Amino acid sequence: MSLVVVGSVAYDGVETPHGKVDRMLGGACTYISLAASFFTHVKVVAVVGEDFASEDYDLLAARDIDLSGLERVPGKTFFWAGVYSADMNDRTTLRTDLNVFADFHPKLPDHYRGQPYALLGNIQPALQRSVREQMHGVRLIGGDTMNYWIHDFREELLQTIRHWDFLLINDSEARLLSGESNLGRAAEKVRQMGPAAVIIKRGEYGAILFHNHGYFAVPGYPLERVHDPTGAGDCFAGGFMGYLAEQGAGGNGPVDPMLMSRAVVYGSVMGSFCCERFGVDRFRTLTRQDIDRRFEEFRNFTSF
Amino acid sequence: MSLVVVGSVAYDGVETPHGKVDRMLGGACTYISLAASFFTHVKVVAVVGEDFASEDYDLLAARDIDLSGLERVPGKTFFWAGVYSADMNDRTTLRTDLNVFADFHPKLPDHYRGQPYALLGNIQPALQRSVREQMHGVRLIGGDTMNYWIHDFREELLQTIRHWDFLLINDSEARLLSGESNLGRAAEKVRQMGPAAVIIKRGEYGAILFHNHGYFAVPGYPLERVHDPTGAGDCFAGGFMGYLAEQGAGGNGPVDPMLMSRAVVYGSVMGSFCCERFGVDRFRTLTRQDIDRRFEEFRNFTSF
Repeated sequence: MSLVVVGSVAYDGVETPHGKVDRMLGGACTYISLAASFFTHVKVVAVVGEDFASEDYDLLAARDIDLSGLERVPGKTFFWAGVYSADMNDRTTLRTDLNVFADFHPKLPDHYRGQPYALLGNIQPALQRSVREQMHGVRLIGGDTMNYWIHDFREELLQTIRHWDFLLINDSEARLLSGESNLGRAAEKVRQMGPAAVIIKRGEYGAILFHNHGYFAVPGYPLERVHDPTGAGDCFAGGFMGYLAEQGAGGNGPVDPMLMSRAVVYGSVMGSFCCERFGVDRFRTLTRQDIDRRFEEFRNFTSF
Repeated sequence: MSLVVVGSVAYDGVETPHGKVDRMLGGACTYISLAASFFTHVKVVAVVGEDFASEDYDLLAARDIDLSGLERVPGKTFFWAGVYSADMNDRTTLRTDLNVFADFHPKLPDHYRGQPYALLGNIQPALQRSVREQMHGVRLIGGDTMNYWIHDFREELLQTIRHWDFLLINDSEARLLSGESNLGRAAEKVRQMGPAAVIIKRGEYGAILFHNHGYFAVPGYPLERVHDPTGAGDCFAGGFMGYLAEQGAGGNGPVDPMLMSRAVVYGSVMGSFCCERFGVDRFRTLTRQDIDRRFEEFRNFTSF
């Protein structure tokens, strides 16, 4: 039983107050898959160009990620470059070269189509929808989106998330999508659009999960140093969904709220690890033991 | 065994997206005292003018607050007016008339001086220090400060907090005081200045407590509607310290970290109630049962 992950595989140029890397492996699909791979078997759907390095392919393969859905086509891999503000709460995009990603149309290999779990990274809503249409017997499906799609592709987005079990977004996206400034009411409105669970990611401030039975909130992990926040939200999603897949969630009816709460904490754990190094570097040495240890740390510093 | 509370008693004019009140009871000492009065006996040190209304006096007296340290002098009571932004994360001060507060010098009645607990609202650091000097046998003392004192009265402030057991500040104040952008390192530096415990208030995002044995974080209470955030930080302080006083904290050695964590949650509970009505209105009907019920709600929505 695997988790199908769809989204961008990219090269990123990133500058933060702690350093600068001109080109390194990135992209939502990459971060989600790496994070989720510590919990469950992952099958990737993405596209790269001829410049995609074998060492990057190997990094993913070494985490036992199924790459048969990773298309390699003529041209260059998606490239993004950005610079973070001093406090790292804002970032400015310096360059976005879509390259081969401009014509990306997710095509699921046959052996992906019957998998029970799917996580859709932030891409065009119609493409996200096409993934669900290629699958049968999905137990849990959800994903991410962003301001651009909410604003300029609203109808398409609404048609897409109508069939999702959960949506992962940030504060401002939840407010934009719902037209509600109050977060609780915003989440309620978004839930009426389809997803039974809405997870609002708040960066250093943690996350809130809203579902049929109430809500769960977790503060952010107080990191000693944030080297590079790129991909933290995607790693959150990967940890969240990876844990649910590991636990076989949704196999017999609605997902237990307590399981979802723990999934949010595992998401927070993976997001926090992501920030500790540039790009995906932290995942080269991370172990499941490290992850479980930080999960217990969360329990300790939130118990009273 | 009482808690001595020192700070401003004022009249406030407040405008938020949910309404406008031209003049109502306010001030740090008022909010702290009302919040703490649900946990412990409170003794107030403050100054008001001839315009201070008997109904406001009666409101405090009805909560069994000792007002023998509330001076009434010729002139007018401190008046502040401000307007909040649409999301209520920012506010603009429209008017500050210090009036009788300009010459405030805390004078503790004799029967205040031997009390074990003291909480110092945000006033000039030298005045905060003078309160401690008038007391003997204090078990726990702490308080609040603000950007203005940190920036323009730094030495005086350092001399004052050197003798405190805890300091309650917000994110930006912690960063300004310590010169550290990372919150954990900022708290560590502030703790080296004297206070064994530093509580960083983050408004809707909750609070973090740093102490000798580690840290504790609690998310904010997801309020359905914030009517007026004025005084929420002071109510947090009142709930925090009121609970510690109720529990006799510090009576035999250092305060138990778990007790401090619970105090932070009670602080969060009181801050959340404060926002539900304009000014101090919520405290007219609030009961200890409401408080304990919300404390349990916090336990439920943070457990995993």
